[in-house]
Amino acid sequence: MTSKGNKKISACILSVGDELTSGQSLDTNSAWIARQLGLCGIETTSHTTVSDDQPLIANSILQLAVKADIVIVTGGLGPTPDDLTRQALAQAMDAELTLDQKSLDEIEKFFRSRNYPMAANNRIQAMIPAGAAAMANTNGTAPGITATLENATVYVTPGVPREMRIMFENQILPKLPRGVGVISHHVVKTYGGGESAVAAELEDLLTRSGPVVAGTTVADGLVSVRITSHAADIETADTQAGNVVEKICERLGTLVLGVGEDVTMAGAIGELLRRAGQTLATAESCTGGMIGAMLTSIGGASEYYRGGVVAYANEIKQHILGVDAAVLETHGAVSEQVSGAMAIGVCEKFGTDWGIGITGVAGPTGGSPEKPLGLVYTSLCKPGGEVTVKKHTLGDHNPREIIRQRASLAALNALRLELLAARES
Amino acid sequence: MTSKGNKKISACILSVGDELTSGQSLDTNSAWIARQLGLCGIETTSHTTVSDDQPLIANSILQLAVKADIVIVTGGLGPTPDDLTRQALAQAMDAELTLDQKSLDEIEKFFRSRNYPMAANNRIQAMIPAGAAAMANTNGTAPGITATLENATVYVTPGVPREMRIMFENQILPKLPRGVGVISHHVVKTYGGGESAVAAELEDLLTRSGPVVAGTTVADGLVSVRITSHAADIETADTQAGNVVEKICERLGTLVLGVGEDVTMAGAIGELLRRAGQTLATAESCTGGMIGAMLTSIGGASEYYRGGVVAYANEIKQHILGVDAAVLETHGAVSEQVSGAMAIGVCEKFGTDWGIGITGVAGPTGGSPEKPLGLVYTSLCKPGGEVTVKKHTLGDHNPREIIRQRASLAALNALRLELLAARES
Repeated sequence: MTSKGNKKISACILSVGDELTSGQSLDTNSAWIARQLGLCGIETTSHTTVSDDQPLIANSILQLAVKADIVIVTGGLGPTPDDLTRQALAQAMDAELTLDQKSLDEIEKFFRSRNYPMAANNRIQAMIPAGAAAMANTNGTAPGITATLENATVYVTPGVPREMRIMFENQILPKLPRGVGVISHHVVKTYGGGESAVAAELEDLLTRSGPVVAGTTVADGLVSVRITSHAADIETADTQAGNVVEKICERLGTLVLGVGEDVTMAGAIGELLRRAGQTLATAESCTGGMIGAMLTSIGGASEYYRGGVVAYANEIKQHILGVDAAVLETHGAVSEQVSGAMAIGVCEKFGTDWGIGITGVAGPTGGSPEKPLGLVYTSLCKPGGEVTVKKHTLGDHNPREIIRQRASLAALNALRLELLAARES
Repeated sequence: MTSKGNKKISACILSVGDELTSGQSLDTNSAWIARQLGLCGIETTSHTTVSDDQPLIANSILQLAVKADIVIVTGGLGPTPDDLTRQALAQAMDAELTLDQKSLDEIEKFFRSRNYPMAANNRIQAMIPAGAAAMANTNGTAPGITATLENATVYVTPGVPREMRIMFENQILPKLPRGVGVISHHVVKTYGGGESAVAAELEDLLTRSGPVVAGTTVADGLVSVRITSHAADIETADTQAGNVVEKICERLGTLVLGVGEDVTMAGAIGELLRRAGQTLATAESCTGGMIGAMLTSIGGASEYYRGGVVAYANEIKQHILGVDAAVLETHGAVSEQVSGAMAIGVCEKFGTDWGIGITGVAGPTGGSPEKPLGLVYTSLCKPGGEVTVKKHTLGDHNPREIIRQRASLAALNALRLELLAARES
């Protein structure tokens, strides 16, 4: 642990809430905050989670303030009786709660702007321990609080992730001291190789010690290679990391979607379609609109995505997409023939260069020995009218939403690879 | 906090790992363990996460052993130099690490059965503090460790979730003392009231002490009322909670989506449509398929959801949904007239009882003073053809995905309220 007195700056994070200690909700705030602190060269030495118990919260704040330079507390600032963090901070500071008029004005304004009546219990949210200062909440009613306790600076934010993040970025980050040197985090996002295959390919680059440390993680169907670089300044840290990132991208080739935390499959496809000046439409059965929702998660998607049909019922496949009744009858709704006809149909109907057609068995029921749960057919109708089909078997033990997400990503990746190939030729 | 000496049994959970404190990985073990403990009537009062630092781990184990009856430690049992939990436990116990022959045999067997050579550094995994006992790992190489420290029983497991869970279920769970009675968790999910309004309505029921404790949380746009019930047996706990749940549902009326962790907006609507024997289609612009994806997240949605059109480009609204070009021209794509025409169009085209039409400005660009970011129009085409429109202003400062998610939920809720009203009449 980094002790006080030397030049390293250390932080501890405290999360408050019965829903967290009991395991009903997962704490995602602490990991996010630790990553932001790392970017400032501040090392997080511990996370603590305690229940909605005032003396326990007060004690924890005090103990952490003795150990670390910075204590970040999230949660327990709501208006209800189980929200006790402001009272606990006051107790830890041995101070009275006093009304902060500016905060009360802001809360009243918040409700006025939304045409909601302000409940009487929201008034408590404008109470701040004497000697502490309020931090405005631009996205909710609970102002944050900052105070000095022992030798630490304590920041208290709401527990709602969005409110916490915006408050952290706008009001805490600019005030943080910078540690000796910086820790910079980089990420290469990939799709299509398993985590162990990616790790095996990169074995010599995945070092656990030295100035640049790298490892793999998996989330939302993508394998990320995370690179952490330690250096005296951000330029050196970024150059060190950049060299490793370049090697990783070279080695992994078309598995790489891009570099950066905000890289997504939909963004990578958007970029390729925009550059090619081409358009896309989707015809979805088992994914029910998920592919469209992914594609339109990117602002400005209307430049290349014209829309699609969610053809959940067979008659919709027939009447809206023009899938032949005989094809549906002969091969069944989950077949390469139907996915192909869907892709062609939506391409023609929507007048686009590319069309995706997808149909499968998402479960939890409806599987059969010939067409098991997790069987998905994805067709691409390419510019010129050629149709390609891919069959995916996504696991008969997987829950419905996992199968649907994997199917959506696999379909979009098939398109991405075709777009990459078209660019090369 | 539950103190020792009274009959309640309390637990603390400690997670170990730099990847956790730095925020590169998310700790999911602690929440899982807390839920298992709760089912045994054991209350978890805190979670702590510390980095791979031997004195820090040793200190944390000691401090938690003073506070709680049971301390569960996960992580840091691997074979590499940054795995220091067994050394830290030995330090906390003031004991030497000694070779456990049975564990060594098991580890050697593990490698033989997989035809892998055993690396020399795996031998450290068979070292156990004198006075402690090993717990076999049937799914990996690191045995767990159990020891008595202060008045607490300490259990140490690997951090790999699968190894931890199997070890917990097979070797820790059977040995756990049962708390006096059980703790059962219940949740009422609501939509449409802010958290403070819901809390104000339920003020007298949101008790922080006594056998039934209740509080509110917010996630994914829904406000959940969480009820925790303590009793000697599960029947009493459930009855106590059931009485409170009933009062909450009565008081909140149509705000309530349902009772249970798996309740969703889409599930509530599916239930209402299924009972009414009616069908639905969707016409989405700004949400790009998200409403369809939500509706089809429920298995068996094909019973009532026939599909929809993602009409992202204006020509698609015109040519596929039959929205009048003059209406688009006069009122603009984001208007109540267009949302209404989309709802009518999809209803007719898909031959359904209900149709949803939605159009709005999701951002991050494209807002104007008259049509700001976050402005969304939702129309419902009802059985018989009557069309209702709702205008939502979802915040010009919100990110695109938040606006789209809120717009999707608001549209579905408008449908839910109409379905409820139709059921009553």
